[in-house]
Amino acid sequence: MSSFLWGCVVDFFTYETNKAVVVKRWSVGIVNRIVQVIIISYFVCYVFLHEKAYQSTDTGIESSVMTKVKGFGRHYGRINDVADYVFPQEGTNVFCIMTRLYVTENQFQGRCADSSQFDCKMDEDCEQHYGAVTASGAITDKCLIEDNESPGFCEVEGWCPTENEAIKSEPMPDVRNFTIFIKNSINFPLFDVTRGNFPSSMTADEIKKCTYHPEKSPFCPIFRVGDILNHTGQSVEEIIDKGGEIGINIEWRCNLDLDVEYCVPHYSFTRLDKPFEKNAISKGYNFRYARYYKSENGTEYRSLYKVFAIRFDVIVTGHAGKFDVVPTLINVVAALTSIGLGTFLCDIILLNFLKEADQYKAKMFEEVSQAEIEASLAGSQLSLKPGIKSSLDSGVPSPSDQAV
Amino acid sequence: MSSFLWGCVVDFFTYETNKAVVVKRWSVGIVNRIVQVIIISYFVCYVFLHEKAYQSTDTGIESSVMTKVKGFGRHYGRINDVADYVFPQEGTNVFCIMTRLYVTENQFQGRCADSSQFDCKMDEDCEQHYGAVTASGAITDKCLIEDNESPGFCEVEGWCPTENEAIKSEPMPDVRNFTIFIKNSINFPLFDVTRGNFPSSMTADEIKKCTYHPEKSPFCPIFRVGDILNHTGQSVEEIIDKGGEIGINIEWRCNLDLDVEYCVPHYSFTRLDKPFEKNAISKGYNFRYARYYKSENGTEYRSLYKVFAIRFDVIVTGHAGKFDVVPTLINVVAALTSIGLGTFLCDIILLNFLKEADQYKAKMFEEVSQAEIEASLAGSQLSLKPGIKSSLDSGVPSPSDQAV
Amino acid sequence: MSSFLWGCVVDFFTYETNKAVVVKRWSVGIVNRIVQVIIISYFVCYVFLHEKAYQSTDTGIESSVMTKVKGFGRHYGRINDVADYVFPQEGTNVFCIMTRLYVTENQFQGRCADSSQFDCKMDEDCEQHYGAVTASGAITDKCLIEDNESPGFCEVEGWCPTENEAIKSEPMPDVRNFTIFIKNSINFPLFDVTRGNFPSSMTADEIKKCTYHPEKSPFCPIFRVGDILNHTGQSVEEIIDKGGEIGINIEWRCNLDLDVEYCVPHYSFTRLDKPFEKNAISKGYNFRYARYYKSENGTEYRSLYKVFAIRFDVIVTGHAGKFDVVPTLINVVAALTSIGLGTFLCDIILLNFLKEADQYKAKMFEEVSQAEIEASLAGSQLSLKPGIKSSLDSGVPSPSDQAV
Repeated sequence: MSSFLWGCVVDFFTYETNKAVVVKRWSVGIVNRIVQVIIISYFVCYVFLHEKAYQSTDTGIESSVMTKVKGFGRHYGRINDVADYVFPQEGTNVFCIMTRLYVTENQFQGRCADSSQFDCKMDEDCEQHYGAVTASGAITDKCLIEDNESPGFCEVEGWCPTENEAIKSEPMPDVRNFTIFIKNSINFPLFDVTRGNFPSSMTADEIKKCTYHPEKSPFCPIFRVGDILNHTGQSVEEIIDKGGEIGINIEWRCNLDLDVEYCVPHYSFTRLDKPFEKNAISKGYNFRYARYYKSENGTEYRSLYKVFAIRFDVIVTGHAGKFDVVPTLINVVAALTSIGLGTFLCDIILLNFLKEADQYKAKMFEEVSQAEIEASLAGSQLSLKPGIKSSLDSGVPSPSDQAV
Repeated sequence: MSSFLWGCVVDFFTYETNKAVVVKRWSVGIVNRIVQVIIISYFVCYVFLHEKAYQSTDTGIESSVMTKVKGFGRHYGRINDVADYVFPQEGTNVFCIMTRLYVTENQFQGRCADSSQFDCKMDEDCEQHYGAVTASGAITDKCLIEDNESPGFCEVEGWCPTENEAIKSEPMPDVRNFTIFIKNSINFPLFDVTRGNFPSSMTADEIKKCTYHPEKSPFCPIFRVGDILNHTGQSVEEIIDKGGEIGINIEWRCNLDLDVEYCVPHYSFTRLDKPFEKNAISKGYNFRYARYYKSENGTEYRSLYKVFAIRFDVIVTGHAGKFDVVPTLINVVAALTSIGLGTFLCDIILLNFLKEADQYKAKMFEEVSQAEIEASLAGSQLSLKPGIKSSLDSGVPSPSDQAV
Repeated sequence: MSSFLWGCVVDFFTYETNKAVVVKRWSVGIVNRIVQVIIISYFVCYVFLHEKAYQSTDTGIESSVMTKVKGFGRHYGRINDVADYVFPQEGTNVFCIMTRLYVTENQFQGRCADSSQFDCKMDEDCEQHYGAVTASGAITDKCLIEDNESPGFCEVEGWCPTENEAIKSEPMPDVRNFTIFIKNSINFPLFDVTRGNFPSSMTADEIKKCTYHPEKSPFCPIFRVGDILNHTGQSVEEIIDKGGEIGINIEWRCNLDLDVEYCVPHYSFTRLDKPFEKNAISKGYNFRYARYYKSENGTEYRSLYKVFAIRFDVIVTGHAGKFDVVPTLINVVAALTSIGLGTFLCDIILLNFLKEADQYKAKMFEEVSQAEIEASLAGSQLSLKPGIKSSLDSGVPSPSDQAV
């Protein structure tokens, strides 16, 4: 019994390796090495150096953005400040700056003619427009006709008088000179690294006086609206007139194997509504809001504002990488494994495309025919040498030995 | 010296491959081929065709959403328009449409009874509620008793009169007919592809007149609120009464190997607050806001609105894939490597489950015992043939040859 | 012809495996097994148990957050409620709670002295400040001098009187006792699992009375502002005075192989503007907004509020994992493949660091020299035994046999 166990132990610590055939032939040897060099180059240059496969990466960047707009805009004799032209006022990462405005003042609840559209000759003409969402109110069953010569307009119920866009308003040109201050703090939770978008070494004075410029001051957190619009390469005039959506992309690509001070943001600017450039409708960006007042007698009335605005989306993306043992090992193993592909290619050449292919086959392959085995089986009943290969280990070959 | 170097070069370009044993046996051969066919099928059908492993993918979709609601809602004699019932008004990707409203008009700062809760008999009863956040104001130390028969109420300091939810208000049924226009532009930064959620070939008229329908007009960007609520499969009545949160999912799955025109959005609608269906409290969605006025003498007063609303979250997800050499190569290598698993399985069969297993073992394994080596070592001191294997290359086998 | 086809079929189902050399030597055998045990341990413990490589994971968590603040804050004799101090009022995942306030009441459009900055002695002094965005309005060309002894101030056009921050206002200490109710529902689209952040078994009473505590009530969705500020480890006094940005992180790490009831949120709290602690300017968080009124004669005027606030960002992250056949298989194959690395290491030892290395080399490598092949080629022209290896299969070795 104990000698059986001992046999098992001996077999367990028996080492198996593949028997190799060494072919001394220049052509095949050179092809083999070239393939190996290509594979090693790919892993060293692309996988390790370019893709930094020795790092573990954190793509789950957590970001917080605070914005603050400054500047004064003259629009039809009024000077608007940030409380007037920025929506919403809380300084979030998505905000709008008004560029143009229609005001419909002193609207009261009531009934009036929808002068902008839906002309009619008699009440029946209006019935077909019941429930039209593009009207200025809920369409009633009346056609209001002032005189018999010009067409009348359908009556609507709602806030009266209705909005009248016929008078074209002028945009507010000062918007170009407004400045946007962006405070962006990010966190890579995996590495517990937090960074701000401007260095703490900047003095209050430096920050107050600087303006972002891609080369001259790439870390200044203050952006001139005109500069941003120019960077998008779009028509500034058109954006100011019709509104638009601008993306301010802040990209953090941090190699944390270097000093953390090199983990800095890169800014870029895009026009987000670009795919709709060629569309027939809904160019630009506008919305409506109202300010509500109460008259002396307690009746509520409002002023309706149709605002054309530039919407800014501060979009923060990024990833960080840092050396880690696990991905390094995994990729080294993958590299070693892949080197074997050279053998694969060379075997094909050796066994097919050389005139001595059959000789190489004869050397490389050892045939075990059924007949041979059966003959051997008949004989071995008599003379089987025990112990050659009978243990768990040798019987169930480890996959490393033959398989993969 | 130069002949030694030449020897090294010769050895370096020596090619090694594994010596193979060829077993002519149907059973094992068939198992081997079947396993290989399964593995190849898995890679071809699942990995390459289904999972598109030959593509590099971009999951970092950048998205910008603009929304615009239209429609008129009659609520207690007033016609509300978009400036009245949408919050916030800027047309962002998260917005609320009011469905029901409590108004508490003309609140002034002062002291009054909190009539909704906190009844009391004497001042001491109120002291225990000090700092209660569910009151309508800061609770003072007084119990206000109108007459001795009914219980009194604790006095609160704050905006008076306090909100009274006793009167049940009716929801605004017109909300079903409101329409939401969604303008979504996306960008796959890796491939520099930007797309809009409706084709630029749609005319202004087509867009204005269409309504989204999953089959009939899947690319119309205008959605009826009633349709959206129906698609979620929830009780529309309940949502309009209590409010709720609805997700409008826009999914972009783009195969950029095809024409970019096939990169289109797919819409789906879910009720986001579904997990709270069975919860005891906080069903639905509501919030409070106030409108502030000034009386003639300069005192500020306000109207408090408790708004029940449907909140819509436009959630954009997506990924794009495009043919790339690197992932293709990686997966081809993985496929080739995996094919070897067939050999692993067949070796187990060959060496264990056949009655001729021992014969096969004898053929496959060549034993090198310690004794044999020692004997050879003794002899080789005399007759070692130099050059068989002595170079860097042959001595340190490339892992491809034996190992993996 | 048919016999040729039959030959092909026979060859196709021929099975090839590598010929192995069995080395009975303790030292190498033990090293081989130790390396294999290390590799297996790594895969079992780290890859499978720790990293759960047998699961497919969904990182595309979809989240919807609803928040509701409660509490009353006394500030300069007024009691503020949620409609007064929360911005925006819709209960979104990003919201601000006012902690301190400057009010500049009754501003009308006009011209006045910018008393806060830009002092001057004559009109020319002001010209250099033209277009300064830090002013309180658009600077005109006048220097307003009240008397000849004290310096004058530049005139601005805009909302007058201008804001005066000279008077330091006190923060609202009650903010510590405000409570935030967070309703967070998430969805893992891959597994179609939706969860809420508090169990549906909680009664209305339990929810109303509880307050979040990391140990005592980790699933209570109601958070005291003072507790949150304490958890961030920052100076509460300073945050309330200057404002700040606080992240409320909700993390969902769900192992869906367990009961879905174990899929619960974990809360943590961070100060998001921490990277700017050491910065010279822009500490804290503040913004301006205005309330607009109309005087009897129809002139618009406004009150400007400079609000210092705590901004809360509810940030939801998470991933879910569930057993899946495909990743399990892939990782099992990777594990099996990696076990072969043991052989790689042992070959190096065997062929280089043992004194019998040359004997092992002789056993492991079978040399095929060019001369030998040529000799054989000359002979085989006469006696090539057909059929040994001539088929597609044997000629093009499957990569599993030799290569990888």
